[in-house]
Amino acid sequence: MKVVSYRHQGKPGVGVVTGDKGVIALSKVAPALPNDLRQILQIDPGLEKVRSAAAGKTADLSLADIAFDPVIREPHATWALALNYTLHVEETGLTTSPVYPQIFLRMPISQVGHKEPLWAPRKDVAEAYDYEGELALIIGKPGRYIKRKDAFAHIAGYSCYNEGSVREYQGHNRQFGLGKNFERSGSFGPWLMTPDEFGDPANHTLITRLNGVERQHAKISGLMHDVSRLIEYLSEGYTLQPGDVIVTGSPGALPLRAGEQPEKPVGKVIVAGQLHMRPGDVCEVEVDGLGVLSNPVIEDPTPR
Amino acid sequence: MKVVSYRHQGKPGVGVVTGDKGVIALSKVAPALPNDLRQILQIDPGLEKVRSAAAGKTADLSLADIAFDPVIREPHATWALALNYTLHVEETGLTTSPVYPQIFLRMPISQVGHKEPLWAPRKDVAEAYDYEGELALIIGKPGRYIKRKDAFAHIAGYSCYNEGSVREYQGHNRQFGLGKNFERSGSFGPWLMTPDEFGDPANHTLITRLNGVERQHAKISGLMHDVSRLIEYLSEGYTLQPGDVIVTGSPGALPLRAGEQPEKPVGKVIVAGQLHMRPGDVCEVEVDGLGVLSNPVIEDPTPR
Repeated sequence: MKVVSYRHQGKPGVGVVTGDKGVIALSKVAPALPNDLRQILQIDPGLEKVRSAAAGKTADLSLADIAFDPVIREPHATWALALNYTLHVEETGLTTSPVYPQIFLRMPISQVGHKEPLWAPRKDVAEAYDYEGELALIIGKPGRYIKRKDAFAHIAGYSCYNEGSVREYQGHNRQFGLGKNFERSGSFGPWLMTPDEFGDPANHTLITRLNGVERQHAKISGLMHDVSRLIEYLSEGYTLQPGDVIVTGSPGALPLRAGEQPEKPVGKVIVAGQLHMRPGDVCEVEVDGLGVLSNPVIEDPTPR
Repeated sequence: MKVVSYRHQGKPGVGVVTGDKGVIALSKVAPALPNDLRQILQIDPGLEKVRSAAAGKTADLSLADIAFDPVIREPHATWALALNYTLHVEETGLTTSPVYPQIFLRMPISQVGHKEPLWAPRKDVAEAYDYEGELALIIGKPGRYIKRKDAFAHIAGYSCYNEGSVREYQGHNRQFGLGKNFERSGSFGPWLMTPDEFGDPANHTLITRLNGVERQHAKISGLMHDVSRLIEYLSEGYTLQPGDVIVTGSPGALPLRAGEQPEKPVGKVIVAGQLHMRPGDVCEVEVDGLGVLSNPVIEDPTPR
């Protein structure tokens, strides 16, 4: 099952995507459910109510009619992983713990939904605005001290994430802070796919394309700290909340093609194949079998 | 004016604290306002509606009757500062940028209100659970690209913060991540004090006491990146949101008293005067003229 957070005629809604690119609006088939996916997961962590409400129903809307919101509009917490694929560790020359994941937080205003414009910083603020294609998972059932073998029971579903990063700010000091949190710098979508349909994350492939050209292509089996380990680790510290998001990390970059020029280096970390996102670009993050998260890039329109 | 977020008979409310330790319940004097301070700030960023609703009214409740919630129950973002007092930089032997603040995020579940128990991790999880007394500010009027001279117009008020940290987890990898985000490891209160009453933050003093003994005592004028600089910096990246919280950093530790034993070192960073918080302790963070945030410490009761 694919579950989408959207706005239609200005109103927020949650729906189930049908095979023919339709959307069954939960406001029609389950009017008692909240119109927000995080709130739905608080009362329906396994999405069984959503599934049974949509069973046998036909679409009310088309995917072409809706504006996509981030899968979870305002998560209680969005955890993101640094350096969680071996290739990415090697290409950056950085070191990270093989035992403990390296994690930081993103705030809600830093993300948009599928097809919504990403904001590249104004040139007089920063220029090194980079894509990071990643697999995200969304927590359903809350839990603490979760063992790896039990971790999958806490996952409501999976999605694609573009963990857009502003390198100048990321490198300002030791903690990433603002560099991972620029307004509308990342995207999350297009929908949540439930585990029964998605299967084992390790069997999937992650692909990032900039203007149609592949720039990242990696098997998700290459995660150093896999999905079950991330849930185990975070649940040592707090009770994972319904709608919490874990963004599992970005793989390495593919080499530039013949004739392509590398970007001007920013700071000490140089990844030869990494290109910046610029106004006019389109960036896609695909997880095979799940879908494609696609976003145009515009210059941050906020007046200075 | 002092504004408090509370629960009374199980119901959430927001109130104005009177001189005789009473609380004017906004649900009585301004029933049209939301019962959540973040939502109030979204429509009343300067708290003028709150002020005029409470003017001339008498208290409905006593401070003794209420349970204190964190001043903002679920902030969109809680930014915290690492190494923002010179003395703390020197005592840790760490380096930080003199130009750019070092910032990270805390999530809502990591904080409690005044008088609520802080949770020390179980001993089989971690032992180095430390207080960090800090001044917090709460954003009222949203803004982007805010100049330092205009920064104070965006502050709805100030409060105390205990930025409780679990050092083993903080040191697991390069980003602080989970170590700054254990469940109920920090506290935020007792109330918001508006800028007209608080005045210039630099004229105040921060004091942290563990079991009644002073462990931190610092003039807030010692901030390396002051309140206006923090607002300027963060607003380069995003539109500051009503109810966003900036926790300005912890000063150094006072020396241990004669006969006191330092803690067993955890990791490479050793601060001689820093003691851990343990079940049975009471930790207080005071900002002079604002109030005292006091919390008992218990062992995390979540079954493992």
